[in-house]
Amino acid sequence: MLNKKLKPVDLNNIRIEDRFWKQYMELVRQHVIPYQWDALNDQIPDAEPSYCIQNFRVAAKREEGKFQGMVFQDSDVYKWLEAVAYSLMWHPDEELERTADETIELIAAAQQPDGYLDTYYIINGLEKRFTNLMDHHELYCLGHMTEAAVAYYHATGKDTFLKVAIGYANCAYACLGTESGKIPGYPGHEVAEMALVALYGITKDERHLKLAKYFIDQRGQSPLFFDEECKKNHNSCYWDDSYMKKQYYQAGKPVREQDKAEGHAVRAVYLYSGMAEVASATEDRRLFETCEKLWNNIVNRQMYVTGAIGATQHGEAFTFDYDLPNDTVYAETCAAIGLIFFARRMFEITKDSRYTDVMERALFNGVICGMSLDGKSFFYVNPLEVSPEHCEKDYFRRHVKPVRQKWFGCACCPPNVARLLSSIGGYAFECNESAVYMNLFMGGDMELTLNGKNNVFHIETEYPWDGKVRIAVENQEPSSFAYAVRIPGWCRAYKLTINGEDAVYEMEKGYAVLNREWKNGDQILLEMEMEISMVEANPLVREDIGKVAVMRGPLVYCLEEKDNGDQLQQIYLEDGQEFTEKCEKDLLNGVVTLTTMGKRLSSAEWAADSLYQTYHGRNFVDQELKLIPYYAWANRGIGEMTVWIHVK
Amino acid sequence: MLNKKLKPVDLNNIRIEDRFWKQYMELVRQHVIPYQWDALNDQIPDAEPSYCIQNFRVAAKREEGKFQGMVFQDSDVYKWLEAVAYSLMWHPDEELERTADETIELIAAAQQPDGYLDTYYIINGLEKRFTNLMDHHELYCLGHMTEAAVAYYHATGKDTFLKVAIGYANCAYACLGTESGKIPGYPGHEVAEMALVALYGITKDERHLKLAKYFIDQRGQSPLFFDEECKKNHNSCYWDDSYMKKQYYQAGKPVREQDKAEGHAVRAVYLYSGMAEVASATEDRRLFETCEKLWNNIVNRQMYVTGAIGATQHGEAFTFDYDLPNDTVYAETCAAIGLIFFARRMFEITKDSRYTDVMERALFNGVICGMSLDGKSFFYVNPLEVSPEHCEKDYFRRHVKPVRQKWFGCACCPPNVARLLSSIGGYAFECNESAVYMNLFMGGDMELTLNGKNNVFHIETEYPWDGKVRIAVENQEPSSFAYAVRIPGWCRAYKLTINGEDAVYEMEKGYAVLNREWKNGDQILLEMEMEISMVEANPLVREDIGKVAVMRGPLVYCLEEKDNGDQLQQIYLEDGQEFTEKCEKDLLNGVVTLTTMGKRLSSAEWAADSLYQTYHGRNFVDQELKLIPYYAWANRGIGEMTVWIHVK
Repeated sequence: MLNKKLKPVDLNNIRIEDRFWKQYMELVRQHVIPYQWDALNDQIPDAEPSYCIQNFRVAAKREEGKFQGMVFQDSDVYKWLEAVAYSLMWHPDEELERTADETIELIAAAQQPDGYLDTYYIINGLEKRFTNLMDHHELYCLGHMTEAAVAYYHATGKDTFLKVAIGYANCAYACLGTESGKIPGYPGHEVAEMALVALYGITKDERHLKLAKYFIDQRGQSPLFFDEECKKNHNSCYWDDSYMKKQYYQAGKPVREQDKAEGHAVRAVYLYSGMAEVASATEDRRLFETCEKLWNNIVNRQMYVTGAIGATQHGEAFTFDYDLPNDTVYAETCAAIGLIFFARRMFEITKDSRYTDVMERALFNGVICGMSLDGKSFFYVNPLEVSPEHCEKDYFRRHVKPVRQKWFGCACCPPNVARLLSSIGGYAFECNESAVYMNLFMGGDMELTLNGKNNVFHIETEYPWDGKVRIAVENQEPSSFAYAVRIPGWCRAYKLTINGEDAVYEMEKGYAVLNREWKNGDQILLEMEMEISMVEANPLVREDIGKVAVMRGPLVYCLEEKDNGDQLQQIYLEDGQEFTEKCEKDLLNGVVTLTTMGKRLSSAEWAADSLYQTYHGRNFVDQELKLIPYYAWANRGIGEMTVWIHVK
Repeated sequence: MLNKKLKPVDLNNIRIEDRFWKQYMELVRQHVIPYQWDALNDQIPDAEPSYCIQNFRVAAKREEGKFQGMVFQDSDVYKWLEAVAYSLMWHPDEELERTADETIELIAAAQQPDGYLDTYYIINGLEKRFTNLMDHHELYCLGHMTEAAVAYYHATGKDTFLKVAIGYANCAYACLGTESGKIPGYPGHEVAEMALVALYGITKDERHLKLAKYFIDQRGQSPLFFDEECKKNHNSCYWDDSYMKKQYYQAGKPVREQDKAEGHAVRAVYLYSGMAEVASATEDRRLFETCEKLWNNIVNRQMYVTGAIGATQHGEAFTFDYDLPNDTVYAETCAAIGLIFFARRMFEITKDSRYTDVMERALFNGVICGMSLDGKSFFYVNPLEVSPEHCEKDYFRRHVKPVRQKWFGCACCPPNVARLLSSIGGYAFECNESAVYMNLFMGGDMELTLNGKNNVFHIETEYPWDGKVRIAVENQEPSSFAYAVRIPGWCRAYKLTINGEDAVYEMEKGYAVLNREWKNGDQILLEMEMEISMVEANPLVREDIGKVAVMRGPLVYCLEEKDNGDQLQQIYLEDGQEFTEKCEKDLLNGVVTLTTMGKRLSSAEWAADSLYQTYHGRNFVDQELKLIPYYAWANRGIGEMTVWIHVK
């Protein structure tokens, strides 16, 4: 059975009070959401205007003007509204909600009588709509609109926005399909697939599930729709000159025949998330197995140790097995977020920690690195090795920035980070009627009815700095249910007690399932040993040969020039290297740093300014090294950084 | 004094009979020159037409038509004529000479009354001439025309072509300069500078030297001519969007203020060669010191171990100190040839082997790798590390080919290889009235008048396979002169005897100078130990950290997949690795191969298809390795290759 065994705990029922995560949530609420609102309204001095809200005003005939900005500019306001929705669930804010309501009212005003809603074509001529599904993002906007509308409905109970999304979804259903008179197309940029299944979860309108399933079934069928569309409408496809061709869009062959993650990485993992949704909702075993194959290909062949994906800037794309360059890398923040979306859905179907392990890896290392510690600047590209001089002068690394940037013309990553972080509680805890699963360890309170009885859980932890997690159960009467604790894949020694005594539990797919009658005041204590380990990559990964990455718990660490000098390629660790951990409260918002006596290649004998010499073995000098968590790099000025470190 | 102390021995007086070099010379004579002639005449099936000869026919009004091909297409026939000239010197060929004469007659017929000669502007409108010196290569064509004309004059004594070149040079002199009414411009692509000094060597016409000196003195002066030209003629500069800007053309600042090799690598070393010529001819100490600085920057900071230069495809350019990626490399064959031009001129001024050492390195490793062993296909880009899958699918390596290509639209490298190899004897031996310098070791005979007396030298060697070089002196009467033998920088043990007895000599800047009275039958024997050594790169070179290159004598070796399997990054050598050499006559036209018992990273423990695991030290399995000379790679099908090999 492929039905979802679990769903996220409602954000209304979670109050995160966690030193690590709460600061991110507050950054999003206090800085990112207001900044993004200003950006949508072209109120940021020195930044390229977005034109997003203005386009809606023009489309709603409240203002004269032309369409401006990217063809997918509408999606920016949808992403903002989604982040707002989550934020309202844990921090009610009347003024923000009023602003959101007014914005939704504007969006609704722009909607056409048949439900169509994309300001680019409303302004430029509706007769042209759905003539470039490949590149013009109308269905991408439908997807983000729908995700936002579903979230806003959950958050506020108001259905104006939901109705707008239903209207547009029904319009798409009426226009697209293999039936006579319809256009046999599907999204060039995926996201609508998973969004429509979420919409179906509320509406139970079969059309919404059917449309999602159709998008997936039709994708890549022969003759290729995008080829036909190009011919018919005289569009051209940039990627036909690349080795990717239509696989840039994951549309080169039917999705069930795809077994390697290919093409634009964000589109890919959005598609795979939608495939998992449809496989689950329709009990499509073959589709689910395709999801498993693609998952395995990503995590076993194409994922950075940080959980980042997408090895090349060319098409912001996956490349091929074991191709994981650290310096010319793309590793887009949004792609790591998309991998988390995919992981969550696979977990909800399987209850298997191999998905949530990757979720944790990506979150701590591949996603939060995307935002500065003050929430004001962002990385789209997340390199694992940086030399600022190369970023400036190496044409092949001009996409790699040594400092986070304020806001981009294409504003995809910051809003994506915002919507993930403001809903992070839902990723931490999933439940069904008789069980709760703790996927991520974060402090706070959670209220949950299990087997008909109400419980409150009080969670305390200093994770990821400390491996202790305390869960106190509060209830009016004893209550039987399962509390399932993820034992992370990185963790090789842990202790699990209930009220001070060794807990009795079954291990099920990586979860310690504590199934019993819980009384008020029961205390679960998970103590994970935060081991520091050196990690190596499969020797098929050329770039990581002879190198190790250092991890502590879920965190990948790195060397920064600020602590270790430049020319980080000269640094070596040794087999069995011992590290000392130190909790530095005033550093980088408070982190545990690792220090160790390492080696640096001596260049004493190179004084004569020569480039090559006969090799007679290497000479090293001792050097104290300091490693910081990777996510916190580039918060102290410009300098070199590396995750992978040479090993003797 | 900066005068040239030496000049190349006249090719008419050298007869190369050398197993290694003669085959290359014959390939050029028998394959490259005829093939190139067909290419110039658009007679190659399946190849893009050149239009080169046709453009001259149109310009000479012998045919109706328009200009076709690259804006610098004229230069192709000049390069061909230069190679033909050298070839005629050691292999007279009446038919070839007649074809060349007819071609020269056609070129002369296209020349304008004032000497101007560039078919692009003759056909498209002379009123536009000299309006885009930055990018339209009129002076580049002047340079190659002049080099060819000088060579053809030396080879045949015929002056028709020389007069054409003089005419065009005088036209340029009349039109360009800082004097009122002249255009204060200079070449966008350098080469005319050194060519004009060579022309001056024949004509002794001060205008020719003045024009060369003017091109160098004016280059990069403020306000930048190329900026002014762009403004005036509404041209645009592609490189203004790059970090290089006008330094792409080495024209961002006055040449005497330049101390790092920057911009397009071929243009750079052509300029530096011209600077050395002008410094020598005008005793310009500051200009010479600039040449030394630029030389040092290249060889100490920006040169591959193969003698190749130009680290990036972006602008086919130098990048910055110690930036020497092996896989995304450019390392254009023409650039290594240009480095040899520069080296030769610096040597002729200084008699210092540090220049000829680099010449030898570049020739054996950075140049001849550019041509297949059958002379029929060519590399423009010469990577030091290749994975065919990356070449196909990595957008940043699409310029890197795993096999040599037949002939390119931009036919720069093959004719450049042709003109170098057909004149290689002149690089081997240089002389003045009292001394002969043996820079490269190759077998053959050479006739030379020294201190007024005639001598013939018979040289025998199996270099680079064997380190023995025998020189027998033949003369009618005893003759006093110096025979200077370069003791290569790579050579740490050698023996030098005359008639079986230890030779008495002074070491002067890397040369063993045998100064004595030579009698008929005297035998010099140089025995160099062909040591196999592992070489390391300066630890400031990120890409080579933890790796070594293997050399034997002047040759850089490499691992190929054909001999060693794929995934060459898994191969390790150890300190003190011992190699066995084997002369394989039937392999790759006859080479000495190196074998050794190396290590391969074991992937046994990786069977579970995982990407990362905890590091507990590395496991290796023994593997017999075979290395071949780098220049001969990619002659046995497509596969991986690497020069730099990991070392334990």
